[in-house]
Amino acid sequence: MLGEVTPWQLYVEVLQFYSRQMQALDSAKFLEFAETFTEDGEFTHTVGRPAARTRAGIVADLEEFHRTSVGDGVQRRHWFAMHAVTPLDDGTIAATVYALVLRILPGGRPEITFSGLAHDVLVRHEGSLYNRSRVVVNDAAR
Amino acid sequence: MLGEVTPWQLYVEVLQFYSRQMQALDSAKFLEFAETFTEDGEFTHTVGRPAARTRAGIVADLEEFHRTSVGDGVQRRHWFAMHAVTPLDDGTIAATVYALVLRILPGGRPEITFSGLAHDVLVRHEGSLYNRSRVVVNDAAR
Amino acid sequence: MLGEVTPWQLYVEVLQFYSRQMQALDSAKFLEFAETFTEDGEFTHTVGRPAARTRAGIVADLEEFHRTSVGDGVQRRHWFAMHAVTPLDDGTIAATVYALVLRILPGGRPEITFSGLAHDVLVRHEGSLYNRSRVVVNDAAR
Repeated sequence: MLGEVTPWQLYVEVLQFYSRQMQALDSAKFLEFAETFTEDGEFTHTVGRPAARTRAGIVADLEEFHRTSVGDGVQRRHWFAMHAVTPLDDGTIAATVYALVLRILPGGRPEITFSGLAHDVLVRHEGSLYNRSRVVVNDAAR
Repeated sequence: MLGEVTPWQLYVEVLQFYSRQMQALDSAKFLEFAETFTEDGEFTHTVGRPAARTRAGIVADLEEFHRTSVGDGVQRRHWFAMHAVTPLDDGTIAATVYALVLRILPGGRPEITFSGLAHDVLVRHEGSLYNRSRVVVNDAAR
Repeated sequence: MLGEVTPWQLYVEVLQFYSRQMQALDSAKFLEFAETFTEDGEFTHTVGRPAARTRAGIVADLEEFHRTSVGDGVQRRHWFAMHAVTPLDDGTIAATVYALVLRILPGGRPEITFSGLAHDVLVRHEGSLYNRSRVVVNDAAR
């Protein structure tokens, strides 16, 4: 159901898609990040916090989260790796990916503040990938 | 000697192969992990511990290792990256890959417990990759 | 402007290029590392330290840096990930990549000593990639 691309090409596209998506997030470009989701996309990034819905909802959620939970002067880096990418029969793509978050203060040592998984459903539209949904699971929240 | 795939396709296959292999390990699916090795595969994961041999041997070794050295309630995450992949003249594939192990306790911060290299020999059989051998080297064991 | 390769192939080549380049650095093979730069390549790895220029200049710079700032018995591991790769109209390739440096002492736990970005300009020459320039930015130096 991939249509225009081979499985190898899809895998590479997924790698590059996540790289640009998370570079946008770590640069606090929340609108650019939200636009990597479909219009009706859903994003659950923190256990116990309701999913953010729609691009406008994702931007609002991230702005609030950064104000209340990240703080000024903090550089975060989201690392994704170990991508398991599965094209599904309905044309969507399931991806399960390891995620780390690093936190760096000016003059400080990098700290790993989060380890977990992102469970994504991706779709291709006019040659580009988008998240239809993302659910992030925290390895420490068990 | 790659036969059916180009070097680019092989590299992507190796990335995805390791992702699924290590997701199986971190989910404690030891049989699924062992089945990513050839029937006569060899796995040396810890300095000073003899190689585990055959799939059944790998499963038994991992079960014992987890019982004695990992412990209940510990989530581990194996990150592989910086893959150097070299197809050899005999049709096998040499891969040298950076490896990290993270350890996460419920409610705790992720800790990096291991950094090292995996030296792998991979083979393709009926379109799939398998480890013929893996030797893990620990950066701290010098 | 890629000529011989597709964007997917280029992305895979970049992944493998960085893997081999940084494995050379972490093995203290400074000449091999410097040869991944063009003859007139420029490398700025530390804020406030002037760029090293030419392959011979890069080797000299790394030898001095390792003598004065790394020390004996320290294994370092440079992890690159989250590659954003953009072919430019002039035939060069811009790459912005997340970078971590881990430091491992004999018998010790791995420590993350650095998080930042590498801003690279790559060129293809006779089928191989080379760094025309690299500027490394430190997340903690703000």
